[in-house]
Amino acid sequence: MAQIVADRRDIDFVLHEQLDVENLCKYGKFAEFNRKTVDMIVSEARNLAIKEMLPALKIADEEGCKFDKGIVKVPEPFHRIYQLFREGEWIAMCDDPEWGGQGMPSTVSLAVKNYFHGANFPFVLNILLSHGAGKLIERFGTDKQKKLFLKKMYSGEWGGSMLLTEPEAGSDVGALTTTAVKNEDGTYSISGSKIFISSGEGDLTKNIIHPVLARIEGSPVGTAGISLFLVPKIWVNDDGTLGEPNDIVCTGIEEKMGIHGSPTCSITLGGKSTTQGGGYQCRGTLLGQENRGMRAMFVMMNEARLDVGMQALGCASASFLNALNYARERVQGKHLLHNIKSSSADKNSGDSRLCVSNVKESAGVPIIQHPDIRRMLLNMKVYTEGCRSLLFYIGMCEDRLRIIDDAAKVDNSKNSNLNNKNSDVDNISDQNGQKRYYQGMIDFLTPIGKGYVTDKAFEVCSLGIQVYGGYGYTKEYPQEQYLRDCRITQIYEGTNGIQAMDLLGRKLGLNNGEAFNNFVSEIKKIIKTAEEISELAELAQKTDSVIKKFEQTANHILNMTKTDTKSNQIMTAYSHAYSFMEVTGDLTMAWMLLWRAVAAAKNLDNINSSKVSSKKQDESFYKGQIANAQFFVTNYLPITLGKMDVILQSDSVAVDITDEMFGGR
Amino acid sequence: MAQIVADRRDIDFVLHEQLDVENLCKYGKFAEFNRKTVDMIVSEARNLAIKEMLPALKIADEEGCKFDKGIVKVPEPFHRIYQLFREGEWIAMCDDPEWGGQGMPSTVSLAVKNYFHGANFPFVLNILLSHGAGKLIERFGTDKQKKLFLKKMYSGEWGGSMLLTEPEAGSDVGALTTTAVKNEDGTYSISGSKIFISSGEGDLTKNIIHPVLARIEGSPVGTAGISLFLVPKIWVNDDGTLGEPNDIVCTGIEEKMGIHGSPTCSITLGGKSTTQGGGYQCRGTLLGQENRGMRAMFVMMNEARLDVGMQALGCASASFLNALNYARERVQGKHLLHNIKSSSADKNSGDSRLCVSNVKESAGVPIIQHPDIRRMLLNMKVYTEGCRSLLFYIGMCEDRLRIIDDAAKVDNSKNSNLNNKNSDVDNISDQNGQKRYYQGMIDFLTPIGKGYVTDKAFEVCSLGIQVYGGYGYTKEYPQEQYLRDCRITQIYEGTNGIQAMDLLGRKLGLNNGEAFNNFVSEIKKIIKTAEEISELAELAQKTDSVIKKFEQTANHILNMTKTDTKSNQIMTAYSHAYSFMEVTGDLTMAWMLLWRAVAAAKNLDNINSSKVSSKKQDESFYKGQIANAQFFVTNYLPITLGKMDVILQSDSVAVDITDEMFGGR
Repeated sequence: MAQIVADRRDIDFVLHEQLDVENLCKYGKFAEFNRKTVDMIVSEARNLAIKEMLPALKIADEEGCKFDKGIVKVPEPFHRIYQLFREGEWIAMCDDPEWGGQGMPSTVSLAVKNYFHGANFPFVLNILLSHGAGKLIERFGTDKQKKLFLKKMYSGEWGGSMLLTEPEAGSDVGALTTTAVKNEDGTYSISGSKIFISSGEGDLTKNIIHPVLARIEGSPVGTAGISLFLVPKIWVNDDGTLGEPNDIVCTGIEEKMGIHGSPTCSITLGGKSTTQGGGYQCRGTLLGQENRGMRAMFVMMNEARLDVGMQALGCASASFLNALNYARERVQGKHLLHNIKSSSADKNSGDSRLCVSNVKESAGVPIIQHPDIRRMLLNMKVYTEGCRSLLFYIGMCEDRLRIIDDAAKVDNSKNSNLNNKNSDVDNISDQNGQKRYYQGMIDFLTPIGKGYVTDKAFEVCSLGIQVYGGYGYTKEYPQEQYLRDCRITQIYEGTNGIQAMDLLGRKLGLNNGEAFNNFVSEIKKIIKTAEEISELAELAQKTDSVIKKFEQTANHILNMTKTDTKSNQIMTAYSHAYSFMEVTGDLTMAWMLLWRAVAAAKNLDNINSSKVSSKKQDESFYKGQIANAQFFVTNYLPITLGKMDVILQSDSVAVDITDEMFGGR
Repeated sequence: MAQIVADRRDIDFVLHEQLDVENLCKYGKFAEFNRKTVDMIVSEARNLAIKEMLPALKIADEEGCKFDKGIVKVPEPFHRIYQLFREGEWIAMCDDPEWGGQGMPSTVSLAVKNYFHGANFPFVLNILLSHGAGKLIERFGTDKQKKLFLKKMYSGEWGGSMLLTEPEAGSDVGALTTTAVKNEDGTYSISGSKIFISSGEGDLTKNIIHPVLARIEGSPVGTAGISLFLVPKIWVNDDGTLGEPNDIVCTGIEEKMGIHGSPTCSITLGGKSTTQGGGYQCRGTLLGQENRGMRAMFVMMNEARLDVGMQALGCASASFLNALNYARERVQGKHLLHNIKSSSADKNSGDSRLCVSNVKESAGVPIIQHPDIRRMLLNMKVYTEGCRSLLFYIGMCEDRLRIIDDAAKVDNSKNSNLNNKNSDVDNISDQNGQKRYYQGMIDFLTPIGKGYVTDKAFEVCSLGIQVYGGYGYTKEYPQEQYLRDCRITQIYEGTNGIQAMDLLGRKLGLNNGEAFNNFVSEIKKIIKTAEEISELAELAQKTDSVIKKFEQTANHILNMTKTDTKSNQIMTAYSHAYSFMEVTGDLTMAWMLLWRAVAAAKNLDNINSSKVSSKKQDESFYKGQIANAQFFVTNYLPITLGKMDVILQSDSVAVDITDEMFGGR
């Protein structure tokens, strides 16, 4: 049966055969989980996604969100799905059970999210912000704040959002002007205007808890003077009952290219209090420490960015499977070899892979048999599957961190089961080292998991239209919506340009390059394993020569950013930051796809030596994994080499030219 | 003043400084035109585009086309613009004045279309099909058909469309099933169903003339048995009066991602005649010869594909200028060098190009000063301007053909003024040779002008969103609409995959490779000129080494398609056809941008030696042209080299794998 939304076989492969997620369950933190429960969770999520969320995808796109006098209504079918989410406890999958979370490994939650985002990411967006706001409270809140808000947010009784961006402070958060004035009772009065607030208002929940970035009167300018506040839509009394509504007004929602089911709100805080005097107030409580708001936001950023990558991958994964199914069913055109007037060659080739002999002279064939369609599908496949492995792997690193933190709580001795020989990092025996290792890996890979993945997902969605031809452009099929929805992911949670700057400016030199070195070492490790497998040896060697040049390139561009060089060079380096992100992403894909191929080759070997029984389908799947690696290494890495040449040449014309030379005056 | 829709300075540069369009006016065919009239035409078109068409862009997107019981209404503001188009006689700009055309050079009409498409391409789509249908009649119609239909179509009194695609015959036109049965009076009764018919129905005109592809009963299967018919919506009597309506029913319009102002119709011909018996008929007359319908369509194809390229470029050109203006105005973030904690370097650099010394420590700067924004803008600039030159150049080749045809009519002697020493082709002195030269150039460049240009335009439109950040995703700005509208251009008039197959399968070996060789020679000619200009010499040499490898690559892939090799190799070659189109496009860009740089360098030289007086703006413009070439050659051609390596390696995995290995079962 055709798969939709996401390929379950591939998800299982990543979870169990590539990443061995069950290994996590050996640790106390995840002792409640095992292969069976993991599979059940994924199956349940898949059912919910396909049966309930997917049918609402188009309806919500057409219906959109409605705004009228401060009130926002989300698409009607979202209410039912929201109840199902609450009942299934899908909102706080990985969070602390003490506060209503499910304590699930992040790796598994990403498999769930692959289905959810692929089926209806505009719906999920309504949940994500709730969860993110809750997470901030779990992480930085006082016990009182947690008790007042957290369980209700994690259970979905109340929602949450995140008030960050202002009209004149988009990517430059430090320029914000929203202010907070301390009241005598310790609360703060907040006033200002915020824009682009996903789920800033809505009718899914009775109350919404808004974390708000604002500057306390007298605090320093820039990011160093920003604090974080919790401002509920309706005030929550100390006994948990609801008080007066706060002076928070939604002044409008954006009309957007896509994600129509997610209200993007403009919000005024304390506007009536300022203009209409007494009787109105917009009160909040400090979340975390004064002037440390940006730090708190940055802590949450990794998770949010990983979610954005997964939203994009959800779109790509669904678009790919739709295109694949369509290409298998749509009969159109003759087989190419019948279109070419000839010849003894194709009749005598005996190449049964092409099925030439089975095709009647004048019969049309399913378009999957056309070489250019195959090129598109294989392109979609390598990026969908490579990016899936990357995101799940980042989740796995988070799970390792959680295990370490948990073990540290339980037992501070060095003899804890962290030194389990199954650990991925054999050469790091101390907890702090392991922690730095995984945190560094997450930090380094986050701009790739956000910036590179969303770029590639957008390309996949565009190919997903192209495979359908004219039909792909119509609303009869979901392909055009996946493209429109996906496009936001390159912009929000830090534009992809900012991801590229983050990679070059913060991550490449992180801990004196330790994170980068670990990244390179992991790739080399896979290369070494692949070299010993006959069908992968050549691919491994090719990748090895690319990684050597990559180290040289990274070194080169990092040196250019050092401030003891000329300022023009710093600017030039940053004008190549985007290319460097692309190159790093390409290497990450090669790593993930080789890793997959290694796992597949081993399993194929077991099948061939009859160590395990197998279905024919398994064999095809594994061979498809080896084909992925071959396609990527042979068809993309030579282009990566070209991109590295560009960075190594470091042409400065984009920096050198004057504004006038851009023309258009 | 900021330019919008298209950069007039750049359009003038291509027309006059790069292509010397006035040279065309030396020939009888275009004797009515000169620099002054050309400039006036472009100015008028620009006014109409900016004042009338652009304001309706968003309105029409929101309002869309309405369908109710067979009746189609286009967006309301289109009626007024349509009248202005009729009054200004913009419908048949280049066509024979005998039938109401304006006889304008194609090159100039492309400048006009750049403005029209950039301002409102969904509107223009309503006109284009009328014109294309008229052109078919002008080219293949009998005198009677021309007299009955043509003037009314070229004047816009009646519309036209093109009924080609069927539900089961999309890209595979030969599979169509619409039939024609000859009646006693010499007319044909047509019956069948057609889809994806732009302007197949509408309320801009009283009558619509439909060229329809159908198979006469008993004709061969496939493309060899297809004929072309003229089927008017309302029958036209021999005296020109209107008769009975034909049995042509619009059964619905598509809901689409974009181009909402252009109705995409499903049409049933002769449906009532079949199901409801007498009293209904769908009659048409044969256009051209029996069974030669596909040939007629192919003749029109070059023009239609060039138009599609121009639609995409219109979107890109407007998106680029919007982004450029926005980046100059939008203040956001500090200058990068102030964000990096330092240092003596940026204070002492004295690099005034960066304006560092003029920026206050804490002040925000317009985002055009950020390196990654500059990268995006320069990327948009090189493709917008390079593609503009390419399309105008193809138009210029068409004009040369028209001059040759005209001269052949007027004077068959070999001493005609065609041997004018200003001719671009010094080494071809005979008319047939010249004709083959220009026709070959048009044929070879058409898949690039359609496939490559629309791909790059889509990328430009996507960057056009990205420069705006979150605002680019909202409907407050036109950027997201340009992306949605632009997306269709990669699909219709032959998907870009088909363009790639056309380039490899038909064009690369055309006339024993003569067209390809001429293409390469033209590039080498520019390289040689550039080598003699000091600031371009290095770029010329770099391009020269790329063109050598390109010849090798072209040779390699062409040989793979030869049928005396293995069939698997043919399939593999076509799986790399798209890459080959991209590589050819890259070389075309390098050619156009170097050509521009040569023209600019010469003019700069004149300014420096005070041979001509100049505005500072001119100087910046010319330097911007040299920067374009540098940016492209240094930042893109190394990647082109990588793409050529991929083609030379000719990996066959996309062809080799079985359908099952794609997964998704």
